[in-house]
Amino acid sequence: MSEKTAITPPTHTTPPARFSHGVRKGGILQVAGQVGFLPAAGGQSHPVPAGPTLREQTLQTLANVHAVLEAGGAGWHDVVMVRVYLTDTAHFAEFNAVYDEVLATVAVPPARTTVYVGLPQGLLVEIDAMAVLD
Amino acid sequence: MSEKTAITPPTHTTPPARFSHGVRKGGILQVAGQVGFLPAAGGQSHPVPAGPTLREQTLQTLANVHAVLEAGGAGWHDVVMVRVYLTDTAHFAEFNAVYDEVLATVAVPPARTTVYVGLPQGLLVEIDAMAVLD
Amino acid sequence: MSEKTAITPPTHTTPPARFSHGVRKGGILQVAGQVGFLPAAGGQSHPVPAGPTLREQTLQTLANVHAVLEAGGAGWHDVVMVRVYLTDTAHFAEFNAVYDEVLATVAVPPARTTVYVGLPQGLLVEIDAMAVLD
Repeated sequence: MSEKTAITPPTHTTPPARFSHGVRKGGILQVAGQVGFLPAAGGQSHPVPAGPTLREQTLQTLANVHAVLEAGGAGWHDVVMVRVYLTDTAHFAEFNAVYDEVLATVAVPPARTTVYVGLPQGLLVEIDAMAVLD
Repeated sequence: MSEKTAITPPTHTTPPARFSHGVRKGGILQVAGQVGFLPAAGGQSHPVPAGPTLREQTLQTLANVHAVLEAGGAGWHDVVMVRVYLTDTAHFAEFNAVYDEVLATVAVPPARTTVYVGLPQGLLVEIDAMAVLD
Repeated sequence: MSEKTAITPPTHTTPPARFSHGVRKGGILQVAGQVGFLPAAGGQSHPVPAGPTLREQTLQTLANVHAVLEAGGAGWHDVVMVRVYLTDTAHFAEFNAVYDEVLATVAVPPARTTVYVGLPQGLLVEIDAMAVLD
């Protein structure tokens, strides 16, 4: 049976419940849902969003996803699926513009699903990702 | 090509459509979205939630996810991702308390994403999970 | 490290952002969220839904998922998980009837999760899928 390891970037706060920011088992690296919280020393108890705007939060959220990938020895090029949760259909075009900037150099972009849900007060975007490493 | 097998715990009702409660193919075991229905003999046609409260439904939902894992020869320790669907952001803290109780002994907790969506009338939580077994 | 390839059926429009309609890496084939847009020559800039009804959109959405699977050398029998996003809990029974028709001959149906979210104006259903091929 393959070993399972938790991936916790040094920039990430402790999760608010019993889950890991990233997990590697066999050839799968799964990144938990990330939001636009600023980098923090481990254990900081009051996570703060990068800012109130969609652009600020999207950039930080994607950076947080990438931090988990990187801590697991992977990058965007390993990602097969990105799940995007927005709160307002009117945000789609602006979100895509930022997303495309960040993933501009990824030769084979991941698949993606974008849906519109409720998120905790003040958060405009949440993103998770699955990478295949084997 | 790897064999694909359906996983149906004896405690589970027949799904309301053409899907399996769990599927194993290659190293992947996928658990379908589970809700807080009480255990039932196969084929029972009127599933009943464990109760109206978030705590009752969360405990039963997690038990139902675990029943599928167990019927597939796996456990929480094999799970890399848990997707949690709640209906109200105000439920987050109470949900986490129950979740943490149930997963207290899992050495490497799965990654997790929690979003707020609509669910059928009377249901407060739905959860699915992916395990890696190879 | 396994090769990663994009899967783009000839019937599909160019995605509105930097993502792939399908991706294959290692044994995983991930299909991006599909909606009920009619088949189009690559690059067509104004995708049009198959029709306003749930039935029309569900049939086209499932056909679009299948087109990606097929372009990746797979079929419904390889799919382990289907994620269904509807906009109204009242659509569940009608959706299931169409879903069951389309998957009628799949010996081991995939696992599935169905939740109710917001989708872009005019769209009633979105579906993604993960297949295991190794």
